[in-house]
Amino acid sequence: MVNGYSGNILRVDLTNQETSIEHPDDVFYRRYIGGEGFVVYYLLKELKAGIDPLSPENKLIFATGPLTGYAIPGTGRNSVGAKSPLTGGFGEAEVGGHWGAELKHAGFDAIIIEGKAKNPVYLWIQDGEAEIKDANHLWGKVTGEVEALIKKELEDKFIRVAQIGPGGERLVRYACVINDLRNAAGRSGMGAVMGSKNLKAIAVRGHKKLEVHNKDKLREKIKEFNELAYKSVSGYFKHGTGGGIMEQFAKSGNLPTRNFRDGDFSGAEALDPSIMKEEINLTMEACYACSIQCKKVVNIGEPWKVDPKYGGPEYESIAAFGSNCGIDDIKAVCKANELCNKYSLDTISTGVSIGFAMECYENGILSEKDTNGIKLNFGNGEAMVQMTEMIAKREGLGDILAEGVRRAAEKIKNGAPQFAMHVKGQEIPMHEPRLKPGLGIGYAISPTGAEHMANIHDNSFANERAIPLHSAIGILEPIDMNDLSAKKVRILAYYSNWRNLYNALLICYFLPWDYVDVPEIVRSVTGWYTTTWEMMKVGERIITMARIFNIREGFSKKDDCVPQRFFQPHRSGALAETALKSEEFENAVQIYYEMMGWNNKGIPTKIKLEELDIGWLYQYL
Amino acid sequence: MVNGYSGNILRVDLTNQETSIEHPDDVFYRRYIGGEGFVVYYLLKELKAGIDPLSPENKLIFATGPLTGYAIPGTGRNSVGAKSPLTGGFGEAEVGGHWGAELKHAGFDAIIIEGKAKNPVYLWIQDGEAEIKDANHLWGKVTGEVEALIKKELEDKFIRVAQIGPGGERLVRYACVINDLRNAAGRSGMGAVMGSKNLKAIAVRGHKKLEVHNKDKLREKIKEFNELAYKSVSGYFKHGTGGGIMEQFAKSGNLPTRNFRDGDFSGAEALDPSIMKEEINLTMEACYACSIQCKKVVNIGEPWKVDPKYGGPEYESIAAFGSNCGIDDIKAVCKANELCNKYSLDTISTGVSIGFAMECYENGILSEKDTNGIKLNFGNGEAMVQMTEMIAKREGLGDILAEGVRRAAEKIKNGAPQFAMHVKGQEIPMHEPRLKPGLGIGYAISPTGAEHMANIHDNSFANERAIPLHSAIGILEPIDMNDLSAKKVRILAYYSNWRNLYNALLICYFLPWDYVDVPEIVRSVTGWYTTTWEMMKVGERIITMARIFNIREGFSKKDDCVPQRFFQPHRSGALAETALKSEEFENAVQIYYEMMGWNNKGIPTKIKLEELDIGWLYQYL
Repeated sequence: MVNGYSGNILRVDLTNQETSIEHPDDVFYRRYIGGEGFVVYYLLKELKAGIDPLSPENKLIFATGPLTGYAIPGTGRNSVGAKSPLTGGFGEAEVGGHWGAELKHAGFDAIIIEGKAKNPVYLWIQDGEAEIKDANHLWGKVTGEVEALIKKELEDKFIRVAQIGPGGERLVRYACVINDLRNAAGRSGMGAVMGSKNLKAIAVRGHKKLEVHNKDKLREKIKEFNELAYKSVSGYFKHGTGGGIMEQFAKSGNLPTRNFRDGDFSGAEALDPSIMKEEINLTMEACYACSIQCKKVVNIGEPWKVDPKYGGPEYESIAAFGSNCGIDDIKAVCKANELCNKYSLDTISTGVSIGFAMECYENGILSEKDTNGIKLNFGNGEAMVQMTEMIAKREGLGDILAEGVRRAAEKIKNGAPQFAMHVKGQEIPMHEPRLKPGLGIGYAISPTGAEHMANIHDNSFANERAIPLHSAIGILEPIDMNDLSAKKVRILAYYSNWRNLYNALLICYFLPWDYVDVPEIVRSVTGWYTTTWEMMKVGERIITMARIFNIREGFSKKDDCVPQRFFQPHRSGALAETALKSEEFENAVQIYYEMMGWNNKGIPTKIKLEELDIGWLYQYL
Repeated sequence: MVNGYSGNILRVDLTNQETSIEHPDDVFYRRYIGGEGFVVYYLLKELKAGIDPLSPENKLIFATGPLTGYAIPGTGRNSVGAKSPLTGGFGEAEVGGHWGAELKHAGFDAIIIEGKAKNPVYLWIQDGEAEIKDANHLWGKVTGEVEALIKKELEDKFIRVAQIGPGGERLVRYACVINDLRNAAGRSGMGAVMGSKNLKAIAVRGHKKLEVHNKDKLREKIKEFNELAYKSVSGYFKHGTGGGIMEQFAKSGNLPTRNFRDGDFSGAEALDPSIMKEEINLTMEACYACSIQCKKVVNIGEPWKVDPKYGGPEYESIAAFGSNCGIDDIKAVCKANELCNKYSLDTISTGVSIGFAMECYENGILSEKDTNGIKLNFGNGEAMVQMTEMIAKREGLGDILAEGVRRAAEKIKNGAPQFAMHVKGQEIPMHEPRLKPGLGIGYAISPTGAEHMANIHDNSFANERAIPLHSAIGILEPIDMNDLSAKKVRILAYYSNWRNLYNALLICYFLPWDYVDVPEIVRSVTGWYTTTWEMMKVGERIITMARIFNIREGFSKKDDCVPQRFFQPHRSGALAETALKSEEFENAVQIYYEMMGWNNKGIPTKIKLEELDIGWLYQYL
């Protein structure tokens, strides 16, 4: 087996309570790399089209990458994937922390979980062995309790646990999987799939030493990353994501406000973790082997107790529960974030669902009768915290919001699709497509529905300073923020290919590695003689495969859109006269198709599949 | 100006006897790189469609690359380009030696020559200055005399001369440009264009020191190349191309025999320079700064005197004048090669033209009346040498053959198109598409007509040993020699993109650099933060631009073919039952179009142009 992998894929059949180990060949590993690549491979290979994502027929895949488990900063991540109960399409999310590294140390590259246990179980993996264990006593408990109980009963405090809380058990469609209590495989509803299988947790412990192809080169690259990290992303060390940028985001119009409706938010500074650090007792910690301590830990006594063991909110969570709900109370935000980690809910989808409900409430579509008496106005922090708990418990209106905004908008009396901010059923993340139209195209075409990580942010390519870096893939000139011509779409296509590679390698977006470093570090670990070209093509392969998965599930061109709201300007602020333009937007989607080698209906061509060495998928088109 | 370039492009207007210097911006340099990239840029930008290639409206471009002139092995090359008088389409050829390096040292990246001098002239370039000088006294003289006269009159024996002999003066359509008497920019008829402009020679001398971005890294890479070269291409040190492989080529069917008709050739060993080295007094020499001494020098006293100052034959010349004419006399081959260098004729086109005439002669299509009494049978070495001289002088049948086989087949009585072995008017090089069908597709789609250098050789991808290298661009499994499926076409598309990059960088195919080394060495010289991705896209850009040039000249899908002969097996030998299959071949051409982002008529799409940052060329489609 090539360095970087154990060569072992664990298969767990929950229905029959059996485990087995598979050993794919080297070509499989190199072609699909890991993480999202493994996920999309197995989902296409093993799922039947049209299955219910919450049925035993769905499969839940946990996957690492070739760098996972090495002492390389930014690699303490793993991927979780399945058919999404939120979108009905390709579902995948990545998560930091320590669990992925531990899984690799325990001798596995990935886990495929299939079927459904009769009663709640958890999986116990230790140094090459896997055991399905009873979890009746854990069911219904929040993540903090569960982790403590598992560590106690297995008598090892160094065990790492990936798990669901009650939100996952209750099949909240955007329930997430939580690693180490405070890292979330947030999006796509993977926690609901885990819940549907009666799988409460996966506890992992391993002692395997990982071999390296070229130790000196690896050491040199790590040193470089650490030095560069201090220079280039030093803000993250102090206050993590969102620190120092909230006001600027609000002013530029990038900060989603009141369900993406408004462009003015006076409370941005009150949400800024760099300004509010004393109020929330901010400290910082890191994922496995990482030198960038970007993960917040907050500790609050009143008016809500926020337990530091659940970490603290990222920018996305701050904006989703904060400005997007019109709330300027960072303590309320921290509490909602804590609840999400306790109950295993995705903070973005939870926040956007509540913002949706607030707009419905303010417009009389929902009343106090619907909300159990809660005054669900924008800006009501207490109401937001209450609603978060109600979603997790599927109580009252929470039961409807637990379905995600697309379904909620259909379920509530009179309906409110105009306020449902989602793409393909997944709630919109916290960056404004009116400001960043290229990101808007990215939202539209992303296979998991709206997503902000493997996507471009137009501002990153709009200035001369960006060029020396991106010239590495041939982007030789900056391009205007508002541009949606083929030049912008090219950047989107290239860059989202590149970022989907990161989801396969399971490397963090925050590390200062680039188009040159990535193949070098993969070479130094695995010995594969790889290049930026091969790496880019891995990303393209994955996006194309995810596209095929969605096509097989009935998705089509009409699903590659964003909510109508984005075609109207904000009611005030910097973008009071700026919005997406419908014709230009649709044209850009078409250009994207063509650049990806897809036909004008967005269907990958046979020849493109052959080029990407995935001709076996043509049968699904 | 970025390191690697002088920033100066010399423009020479022969009609008005004026010279000027231009300074393109950095983006131009990075986007088009050099060599073939500059050539295709200027031809598209500055030529009108439909002009006569031998008229003053054609432009002749000499271009170096970013590595030219540095002490890096394999970079002593330059490119020569113009609209081709042989094909009527894109014309370009590369050449080794010392001239290109000297041009860079003289302070120029490229020369654009336009118009036509009233009387013969030559160009004298020295340290940033250019002068148009009278060449009446040089006209009509062979290259060896001209070089000596120029060095003498300019009083510098270190001057380097690129020039044409009487073949170029007489507009032989496949006349070449000769550097240092023994290196030919062989293909596309660039010598005829030079002749049509009354430009006899370009003499160059320079003393400029070239700056390097990262000296240590460059030194390290050069050391690597030299070490690897000794290991991997050591055969070239001893006997150059063709050494030790003639018999094996004959046995496998790869050795073109009797105008590509036959598969048996008993004289292969008699043509092998490693076996015949004493008969031809073989010694070896190198291009500028190169550690691989692959250039033959032969010295023969009888029956023909072959002057060592004209070097010796490459494999292509040996096969073209040897087996392809049924000749097993290496001395005759060496003499024909010397004549080509004296007169400035392309050896491949000359040999194939003579092979064509021999087949016509044996079939009664030409008689002794047509040949001035020469018995032009296959195997007649003396006749072959005579015909070479007659072509250079356009005497008798030579005047017809000087037009290339396509035109010759039309001109001779009764015609003989079935024996005219060309693609787009350019004669086929010395590798068998029946054995290497992927190469056959490459012949068909190459913008300059049949060419073998920026093309795949199927055998190079047919074994497990090749994979570690080519995996760098995602080719993870070997592919059968005979395969013409999309998998093979993908290799062709990727690899020809890569090899066209070499024509822009002006690096030699024989050096052991690969997909990882090339961006590293470009980075170390220029400081551009480039990757394999950007480099591959440069190659793709160039091929696409050359395609557009040809489309603008009226070329279409119907021109992407190979002679019918290749669809029939050899009359004997290894390929007596193997030939290209028409339907499969046409299908593969279509697959190639699609992989390149061209429509099913072979026309690049607007979006592909945008992706390649050459949207400005859409106007020509």
